[in-house]
Amino acid sequence: MRGAGRQRAELMSKTDPLVIFTPSGKRGRVPAGTSVLEAARSLGVDLDSVCGGRGICSKCQVTPAFGSFPKHGLTVGPDALSPWNAVEERYHRKRGLPEGRRLGCQARIAADVVIDVPPESQLHRQVVRKRAEAREIVLDPATRLYYVEVAEPDIHHPSGDLERLATALAEQWGLGGIEADIGVLHSLQRVLREGEWKATCAVWQGREAAPARIVGIWPGYYEGGIHGLAIDVGSTTIAGHLCDLHTGEVIASSGLMNPQIRFGEDLMSRVSYAMQNPGGAQEMTRAVREAINSLAEAIAAEAGIARETILEAVLVGNPVMHHLLLGIDPVELGWAPFALATANALDLRAEEIGLSLHPNARIYILPCIAGHVGADAAAVALSEAPDKSDDLVLIVDVGTNAEIQLGNRERVLACSSPTGPAFEGAQISSGQRAAPGAIERVEIDPVSKEPRFRVIGCDLWSDEPGFAEAVAGTGVTGICGSGIIEAIAEMRLAGIVDAGGLIGSAEQTGSARCIADGRTFAYVLHDGRDAGGPLITATNQDVRAIQMAKAALYAGARLLMDRLGVDRVERIVLAGAFGAHISPRHAMILGMIPDCPLEKVQSAGNAAGTGARIALLNRAARRDIEKLVRRIEKVETAVEPRFQEHFVNASAMPHAVDPFPELERIVTLPSPSFNAGDAGRVRRRRRG
Amino acid sequence: MRGAGRQRAELMSKTDPLVIFTPSGKRGRVPAGTSVLEAARSLGVDLDSVCGGRGICSKCQVTPAFGSFPKHGLTVGPDALSPWNAVEERYHRKRGLPEGRRLGCQARIAADVVIDVPPESQLHRQVVRKRAEAREIVLDPATRLYYVEVAEPDIHHPSGDLERLATALAEQWGLGGIEADIGVLHSLQRVLREGEWKATCAVWQGREAAPARIVGIWPGYYEGGIHGLAIDVGSTTIAGHLCDLHTGEVIASSGLMNPQIRFGEDLMSRVSYAMQNPGGAQEMTRAVREAINSLAEAIAAEAGIARETILEAVLVGNPVMHHLLLGIDPVELGWAPFALATANALDLRAEEIGLSLHPNARIYILPCIAGHVGADAAAVALSEAPDKSDDLVLIVDVGTNAEIQLGNRERVLACSSPTGPAFEGAQISSGQRAAPGAIERVEIDPVSKEPRFRVIGCDLWSDEPGFAEAVAGTGVTGICGSGIIEAIAEMRLAGIVDAGGLIGSAEQTGSARCIADGRTFAYVLHDGRDAGGPLITATNQDVRAIQMAKAALYAGARLLMDRLGVDRVERIVLAGAFGAHISPRHAMILGMIPDCPLEKVQSAGNAAGTGARIALLNRAARRDIEKLVRRIEKVETAVEPRFQEHFVNASAMPHAVDPFPELERIVTLPSPSFNAGDAGRVRRRRRG
Repeated sequence: MRGAGRQRAELMSKTDPLVIFTPSGKRGRVPAGTSVLEAARSLGVDLDSVCGGRGICSKCQVTPAFGSFPKHGLTVGPDALSPWNAVEERYHRKRGLPEGRRLGCQARIAADVVIDVPPESQLHRQVVRKRAEAREIVLDPATRLYYVEVAEPDIHHPSGDLERLATALAEQWGLGGIEADIGVLHSLQRVLREGEWKATCAVWQGREAAPARIVGIWPGYYEGGIHGLAIDVGSTTIAGHLCDLHTGEVIASSGLMNPQIRFGEDLMSRVSYAMQNPGGAQEMTRAVREAINSLAEAIAAEAGIARETILEAVLVGNPVMHHLLLGIDPVELGWAPFALATANALDLRAEEIGLSLHPNARIYILPCIAGHVGADAAAVALSEAPDKSDDLVLIVDVGTNAEIQLGNRERVLACSSPTGPAFEGAQISSGQRAAPGAIERVEIDPVSKEPRFRVIGCDLWSDEPGFAEAVAGTGVTGICGSGIIEAIAEMRLAGIVDAGGLIGSAEQTGSARCIADGRTFAYVLHDGRDAGGPLITATNQDVRAIQMAKAALYAGARLLMDRLGVDRVERIVLAGAFGAHISPRHAMILGMIPDCPLEKVQSAGNAAGTGARIALLNRAARRDIEKLVRRIEKVETAVEPRFQEHFVNASAMPHAVDPFPELERIVTLPSPSFNAGDAGRVRRRRRG
Repeated sequence: MRGAGRQRAELMSKTDPLVIFTPSGKRGRVPAGTSVLEAARSLGVDLDSVCGGRGICSKCQVTPAFGSFPKHGLTVGPDALSPWNAVEERYHRKRGLPEGRRLGCQARIAADVVIDVPPESQLHRQVVRKRAEAREIVLDPATRLYYVEVAEPDIHHPSGDLERLATALAEQWGLGGIEADIGVLHSLQRVLREGEWKATCAVWQGREAAPARIVGIWPGYYEGGIHGLAIDVGSTTIAGHLCDLHTGEVIASSGLMNPQIRFGEDLMSRVSYAMQNPGGAQEMTRAVREAINSLAEAIAAEAGIARETILEAVLVGNPVMHHLLLGIDPVELGWAPFALATANALDLRAEEIGLSLHPNARIYILPCIAGHVGADAAAVALSEAPDKSDDLVLIVDVGTNAEIQLGNRERVLACSSPTGPAFEGAQISSGQRAAPGAIERVEIDPVSKEPRFRVIGCDLWSDEPGFAEAVAGTGVTGICGSGIIEAIAEMRLAGIVDAGGLIGSAEQTGSARCIADGRTFAYVLHDGRDAGGPLITATNQDVRAIQMAKAALYAGARLLMDRLGVDRVERIVLAGAFGAHISPRHAMILGMIPDCPLEKVQSAGNAAGTGARIALLNRAARRDIEKLVRRIEKVETAVEPRFQEHFVNASAMPHAVDPFPELERIVTLPSPSFNAGDAGRVRRRRRG
């Protein structure tokens, strides 16, 4: 920042060289001899630098353009910049500078020039997201590195090392009123002397109004990089992205099972465990914290970095996970009025919640929306930005509870709907978790009423040659959540199930696959008994379970639509690992989600994890979501009489005929659940 | 705070009753029916209340005055206040209200009235200090209790318990934007429900610009009291005052030896230990933290309170103690330029420095002045307030190093002078620590040259009847620091020692007590050898050691006087445990301190501990000392050529004749070193 004021005052002279920066288009005149970095700063051009222009960090690389620029009325000669100098030469020999690149702090402006700032040299560069419709992420993390040169102590003017460091950060980087963690004080004197009064500081500034804090310090120019973790603490899975805080890139992603599962499969059984076992909540707190530490260790190992370079983590989770992670007994979340201990976003130190990252690592936890709609839903809102949507978007994060958001720029509503575990394959007679061998795709021929299917772990359909050999290892073991949805939807289209949800007999349907099952009937999807495998059926009870679950989901969405006074939504986003695997067409046939043009149904993958990553990489996003959460209108389904009404009305299956007979089917292939949104491949296949 | 705005708006009506508060003299008209507490608040009268006017806390007791007040032109009838009500009756039965007292929140103003606010009902009451010249302490601690009534959760308007508590604190107490420690979140839900949505919060607001934080919470109205510790971490002794944070009173004081002594008697030997032993600094850090925890436990037990009710501690110490306490290796303090890791004041959590108080207790550490002049010297400056002095005051805190401050309203200077351990009885042939049996007072008859003395633990002089029996238990074991100063000063007045510091022979002095001691002589103070005790002498080497020490002290003071361009000081304050025991007259005879009228020499006792207590009880005092420390002009004796010059010149003993022959002797009796300033009894005895 040094010298910026001086240069700005001198910008007016017409004889000074004109400098034009691309892609920003910012332009101005600067005195000859001004470095490109200084010129960029004085013109407000976003050009990165960690070392503050000392030719050390190489973050300020630029590409000068030479030749004629009729658009700008400019011709740039080869002498527009000072010649390649010794610092650049040394850097090039040591690390290599791409052809045509200069170091912005070394190249000085001699005459009119056009200078391109490549994306990786932008301080607030945009982080790439693969989904075009997704919110863009501008890199501006709460923790950044700053290289400084510190005044040596002077016996005649005694002052603490920290005070001189603070002065250096204020003068060289404009970071006034800075404070330091006590852990930094422990190593400060050694580090400053080891680095001969040059040091790199990691500075955390989670809230712009609060004083910045030095959280890490290294001697000299630190090249090791600093990292951040975005973690979605799900009831079943804990998933994390490790990001480079300087580039914003995801350098590793990983997930593990939430070890709390041993205390109860779903949220309410964990709350019950806490109620019924003294110390039970603490046990679960310990378990989840240990798991996060293991995940951090594994993900750091995968990326080949030291866990101690992780200076920040952003965590999201549903209210019960949120409370257990914080060490708060979730008992109040087990009964009305479902009071949270706190709904606010939290800035913590990692050690306060028992996480072993950098010793002074900071934690940001997104706000919760309500007692049933947690920080994970807030993260989904941050990722999917309903409040920035021009069209009315319905966002559904399907799990044991479905968190539903509906809104656009004007209003956003949210609720949680108790869908139960049917969508996860539980309470389904042949149900199982999504694992190799599970049926995940089903088609039933409307004429022959014969099924064909695909199982997880095999790309072939069951009627394609080689299928039997391909699945010989695992066999066909059951049906997962997305499989049962497709099966029942296809059964409805094939006339095997009626609108009320009853499976017909072999006589009624004309299919021998309809067999008796007590007082009702079941449809045989696969009979593996000859080969020692299971008989896999969709029973009438399965249909009922899915009817209940989808009715709950639909009723929640309808409730929000009522509140907004609308009958249709313009866009639907399916979030969550499960959402990534659902066939939107089948979901709509079943009546799980309101009708909507199929091309307007998107899968966002683990949007909660993505939201956590956004909050990790952009501190303004934290303020955004804190504001949005206060604005979101919370609807409590448990006490809304219309919810029951909608629920009852929603149990029927509306579509006897495929509403999209001419449309392609969208098949989203399985991909790591923590990364499905950005990385999931989408294949299209014309319907046969 | 509720309703204050409304009442202020209505204050104008001339028909409303007039209320006059004493002793503040504040007056105004309030609508009939206004409670005394509300009237006090609307008029800005300092009337305490923890419960906010709910008749629970009884802190708002007032004494209405009835009868005729010609000064105010008022006659107050018996019906000026509403009658004694059921709340007051219940409180009186349960706890007792002194005769004539009313609860300010219950008594309502019916007609013109005069109301006295007794000292203990003032929120910002003055804390009593015994020394008239000492800075007054206005009670305004950083941590206070607030009773609140919190809204219950509402399923239709979901919000966290913390958010509703924060709203209550904002609405009922004006504490906006409050935050909470994670430890508070752990118990918040249970506490609020146990107290049926009433709770008492301990709120810490160390810096007015920063958000207030909830650090403790109790169900309902909490009557247990909250406490603070003021601790002076000395090289030799760690001394603490336990204060009631609501009344400001010291409820217990205690001290213990600094266990670091096993790593080295003086500061520099501890720094050497850290340099020479890997992990040595950490060992010393552990030792001092454990000692402070023991002290806290002992002092809490003595006061009959739970250690967990200690919500704040203020700590002071010299730079080496300061660094070791913080866990910072003090190695840089062992050599020039004596760079501190930080000189700034610090706000910490107790756990950050390993202290076991209330789990969320806060720590305030005063700023250091320079590498040799620590937070203890800052505390002395806070207590003795040289910057608020009209006369030019010299403040000397005598120890292994003497910290010297000189100044008045205009300028304040400070330095540290390496006096060495002689004043503490070390390096003295018969020297010992101040303990029972040690000679602490000496008089030598100028004619007979016979001594008489007193020992610690006995009120009799050695020539008084019964002395031998009284000291039979301990015997006469040696000379402590104050004893050797008196002995040498008296030897000088009796002509036993000359101006250059040489003891004469028996022939030269005419006293058989002058015996040969190698090539020089020694003076026999006490010969206990017949009874199996020691021969106690003051040797010529002892005289030399004291000469060096006093010369260093004097040279430091002179250096500051030079800087100010003055030849005399107007007032001298002797601080520290040792300062409390020194006879100012003897110190002046020796030339330890500059000449000054004897009645202008004061003993401040443990002024560092008192300064810590001031910072504990008044948060504005923290800002005062932080500002003063920046203003203090630091003088480094080690690099001042004039220091050596003064030192050489100051080794002579200036007074061959008692400069104060007609004056009383001031004898300060021993008292617990941590409390000498305020509690030390001062006895005066006409010289015989």
